Parts: sequence; structure tokens; C-alpha cells
Amino acid sequence: MSACIFCGIVAGTAPATKVHEDDTLCAFLDIRPITRGHMLVIPKLHATNLDDLDAALGARLFALGHRMAKALRRSTLGADGANLILNDGKSAFQTVHHVHLHVVPRHTGDIRSFATGMLFRGRVGSQPDPATTAAAIRTGLDRLDLEESGAKDKEQHA
Amino acid sequence: MSACIFCGIVAGTAPATKVHEDDTLCAFLDIRPITRGHMLVIPKLHATNLDDLDAALGARLFALGHRMAKALRRSTLGADGANLILNDGKSAFQTVHHVHLHVVPRHTGDIRSFATGMLFRGRVGSQPDPATTAAAIRTGLDRLDLEESGAKDKEQHA
Repeated sequence: MSACIFCGIVAGTAPATKVHEDDTLCAFLDIRPITRGHMLVIPKLHATNLDDLDAALGARLFALGHRMAKALRRSTLGADGANLILNDGKSAFQTVHHVHLHVVPRHTGDIRSFATGMLFRGRVGSQPDPATTAAAIRTGLDRLDLEESGAKDKEQHA
Repeated sequence: MSACIFCGIVAGTAPATKVHEDDTLCAFLDIRPITRGHMLVIPKLHATNLDDLDAALGARLFALGHRMAKALRRSTLGADGANLILNDGKSAFQTVHHVHLHVVPRHTGDIRSFATGMLFRGRVGSQPDPATTAAAIRTGLDRLDLEESGAKDKEQHA
């Protein structure tokens, strides 16, 4: 367990730019991003793969990925799409053996830079300033929160 | 809505080899599979993209994907991994605009056939007999059910 880099990030002993954290989950910037804002969403409790992951925790993990995709569309990063990818098992290209969901922001017309990012992950400077990137994503989360609380207010007054 | 091919599959007016169906979700074989057993998990209620998808329904959708990944490992297909992929938005390669989660079975050493399947989707005969493939996946679901009911029995007797 101590050798798991993602457990280290959860514990705060390994560095990471966190975008979100709650009791059971953590989202942080991928250090080898395919596109700017590429995040990983992980359960805090170590699970090697999906076989090992509690179903309720899995539902929360994916729900946060869903939320992040919505936030990216609202963020100052200006994404209009996202790829959500979970590689489960060595044969499926899982390289860190702590379950993680990739959330990769996309923009219309970015195919060339996306392909470059896939081929040369993290070597094309797509995450030049992690703190600024994380702050940009948080603008989207804030807008989503505001939208949802607005919708709730409307419901209560209906 | 009537033009949506996935709504047609839900309604039973468009053909598909279904692997699972319940009140809110449906899983069926991709007609252009990357590997044998490649499935799509969809919400029955039309949602264009993640922005449009109810959070609770999204959690169910992903939970079924999680379950399918576990089932594939237990199935006679003999998968030892899976890629779960949700392309959200045109810019992210979403081509059918009804939310769908890809569940792609993987096997150790299948990289060459996986790459071929990606490049020539559905043209390499990786889903030669859909009914047999669906039945093979269901063996995994059955084994998972059995395992879980066994675990529950143990809990009750503990």
C-alpha cells in the first residue's frame, strides 16, 4: 500500500494539484496530460481495479467524473466535450494499480493536439501552470454549483 | 427523438443484441466492435450528452458499466481487463448523440488485435456470432450474481 503513488497523493505525502477532495474521493491533475485540464478521479480507499472496488464507491467515483465533465463545459477552459476513460487491468493499459478515471477536456478542432497529447503524454507542455489550470476548472465547478442551487430555489418556489 | 438509433433499440424498433435490460438501462453489443464482446451501456431515457443526463441516472449507467467489467472477467470470454470509455460531445468523438458508455473487453497480449479493431472498427469480424457472444457475457453476469448471493448468505450467517 505504501508503494502506491495515488495513496501517497491521498495522504498528502506525494505532490499533486488537487481540484476536488471529499470524504471518499479525490480529483487531481494528471502530470502527463493529454490536453490541458486532464484530471484523474480516484477513490481514497485503495482498490487495485474494478474487481476490487466497492459498487457504491464506484458509483460515486463515476458521478464525480460526470460532474467534472459538466464543470469543464462551464469553466474558463472553454471545453465543449470530454473523454471519460477508465482502463481496468494491465491488459487494458492500466499502469497505476489504484483505480482511476481519466477526465480529458476536449475542444472542437483539437484533434491534432489531442493526438499529439496521446502520443507524447506530458511532453508537450499542455499543463504549463497546474495551479492556474486547477483554478480554471474550479470556475466551472462554482458555476455548476450556482446553477444547481438556482434550480433548487426555483423548485422550492414553484 | 424518433431519429435516434439508440432510442429505436430501446423501443425494439431497431435491431440489437441485448445483453442486459432493466427499467432504466440497456446494454447491447456494439455493431462495430473493437474487440469481441464490446458493449454499449445506455440510459433508456434519451440524453444527448452528459450535460443533459440526470446525475442519479448517470450513476446507474456507470454502475452497470462497472458490473459489466466484473462480469467480463468471470465470463467464458476470458477477459482479464476492460476499457470503459464515454465520449462526451462531438469534439470528443461522440458520433451517436444519445449518451453511451463503451465497455471493451481486453485480454493480455491482445494489443495488436485491439489496435486493428480501433482502426477498422467492425470490419475485422470480431463479433462473428452476436448471440453466442452475448450468451458468453451472460455466463459472467450469472457467476457474478452467484458470487454476490453467496457473499450475502455468508454475511447473514456471520
